[in-house]
Amino acid sequence: MHTSTALLVADLTGVAVFAASGASAAVAKRLDLFGVTFVGIVAALGGGIFRDLVIDRVPPLAFADWRYPATAAVAAGVVFWLHPQFSRLRTTVLVLDAAGLGLFAVTGTAAALAAGVPAVGACLIGTLAGIGGGLGRDLLTGEIPVVLRREIYAVAALAGAVTVAAADRLGWAGPVPLVAAALLVFGVRLIALRRRWAAPVATDRPVRPRTPTR
Amino acid sequence: MHTSTALLVADLTGVAVFAASGASAAVAKRLDLFGVTFVGIVAALGGGIFRDLVIDRVPPLAFADWRYPATAAVAAGVVFWLHPQFSRLRTTVLVLDAAGLGLFAVTGTAAALAAGVPAVGACLIGTLAGIGGGLGRDLLTGEIPVVLRREIYAVAALAGAVTVAAADRLGWAGPVPLVAAALLVFGVRLIALRRRWAAPVATDRPVRPRTPTR
Amino acid sequence: MHTSTALLVADLTGVAVFAASGASAAVAKRLDLFGVTFVGIVAALGGGIFRDLVIDRVPPLAFADWRYPATAAVAAGVVFWLHPQFSRLRTTVLVLDAAGLGLFAVTGTAAALAAGVPAVGACLIGTLAGIGGGLGRDLLTGEIPVVLRREIYAVAALAGAVTVAAADRLGWAGPVPLVAAALLVFGVRLIALRRRWAAPVATDRPVRPRTPTR
Repeated sequence: MHTSTALLVADLTGVAVFAASGASAAVAKRLDLFGVTFVGIVAALGGGIFRDLVIDRVPPLAFADWRYPATAAVAAGVVFWLHPQFSRLRTTVLVLDAAGLGLFAVTGTAAALAAGVPAVGACLIGTLAGIGGGLGRDLLTGEIPVVLRREIYAVAALAGAVTVAAADRLGWAGPVPLVAAALLVFGVRLIALRRRWAAPVATDRPVRPRTPTR
Repeated sequence: MHTSTALLVADLTGVAVFAASGASAAVAKRLDLFGVTFVGIVAALGGGIFRDLVIDRVPPLAFADWRYPATAAVAAGVVFWLHPQFSRLRTTVLVLDAAGLGLFAVTGTAAALAAGVPAVGACLIGTLAGIGGGLGRDLLTGEIPVVLRREIYAVAALAGAVTVAAADRLGWAGPVPLVAAALLVFGVRLIALRRRWAAPVATDRPVRPRTPTR
Repeated sequence: MHTSTALLVADLTGVAVFAASGASAAVAKRLDLFGVTFVGIVAALGGGIFRDLVIDRVPPLAFADWRYPATAAVAAGVVFWLHPQFSRLRTTVLVLDAAGLGLFAVTGTAAALAAGVPAVGACLIGTLAGIGGGLGRDLLTGEIPVVLRREIYAVAALAGAVTVAAADRLGWAGPVPLVAAALLVFGVRLIALRRRWAAPVATDRPVRPRTPTR
């Protein structure tokens, strides 16, 4: 399988899982069919549109290739009609989101490297492409953005992006390093959710007043 | 009248009505003169800037042609000084928003087709160009985005976009199909508001437990 | 010092102060290390990415030049580890924000003029580049956007942008007018904060009913 085909398949899979995550979040908020589809499309295509704009691939694939919006709309519609009961949706959103995070972080980094962006910038673009869909979904549905919650999130995407950039630097071509990097992101994210891995939080520092009275 | 002139007139009219809708929403939130102007400018120019970025028309018309920001600023200022009493503003926002939705959906689709975007992508760009201004206005003023409320909204814009793409495919040039498509969106949206047309909502499905005890 | 070097230094200084403002706001919200870094990066790079997209400088400097994300990440990390006690953070955010507003309004306008954007559009791009970082920070941390609060904000940025455009029209080259314009924005903003300068607010107008009964 060529790398470009692998990238397309990975990208469309990411579109489908992010559309399903957005649709699940919208169903949980009791939005109607069109609201569910809209949130699904934003979650599925938002990160990729941003990625394509900054690497000068215009019109972005989401508009140039009808399979992108079609995949997003079908996935959102399937969730709307076949969703499980509401109480299970929160876990569904998180698992689908972890899969989309890995896929878009990897395809975003690979696309940026292919467009000639230096490694540091390509990792940042990949991370933002992975984060973008979930951020749009959370802003629209009024949730605290998942990237700001207290588990490992953006750093998992960054780890996958760095893996892709390192493989590129070392000359490892083909789909194998991409798949490995996507699985790395997915695995780290799921373990972080399950074990509640968290990063340090700043603590307040009481200031000892230098002039106790005045 | 040439199509390009018709597009410019329609685009600037859309800028004016979306600026007025944004300014009305901001006045209702008791923002000051500059806040009102800023919300008006975002509502008026946001959808078009997005449209121009994805069809590679840079700098976007909002920056390349001074009549765009000038129209937006003047319309917002007029609303600030001449607005009716606050209680009537909500209806004003909705009617102006319906007009802007139709105008931007039509000009966005036509501009994307003229830039060589395939029909499906052009319809999506037109729909997003129509939705964009109201989405920015609602996010800034803390309202639930109109596109997520329970009446027909994005689908009205999509109907206008599809009309423009179909006319283009059939070779109907000139401003007539554009005007018809814009009126279609405006009419559908107003009827949806008045009759409270709504799309279906997902229902919760109680799950019959397979193993009642454990 | 060449103008391009002056622009780079001013731009990176703006990145550092906006990253610090974003990180301070995120620490005040008790976000973890990664959340603090993310908000700092969005605040630092958001305005510049928007500016570069609309003047067709792709990939944007934030991705093409590793010093941009590195400066933002280091500044955010320094704030996370060395921040003063929380009670003082609000003032810190406002002062750093004023400095970033001036620097980005000036570099944004100069970059747009250098890219051939007409004067009105260049002033608008510069103003939005100045506003963008703080807007992203406030949306992410759930604050009322500073641009909508009742003190002079966007107008201060616009004053700096107009100064840069006027100097360009008059043929004044070099860093002196840029520094003067940035100091103008910073000064106006600090005075507005201290003196609580505010713009007029629309007042409600009771409507005398023409048909008292019906």
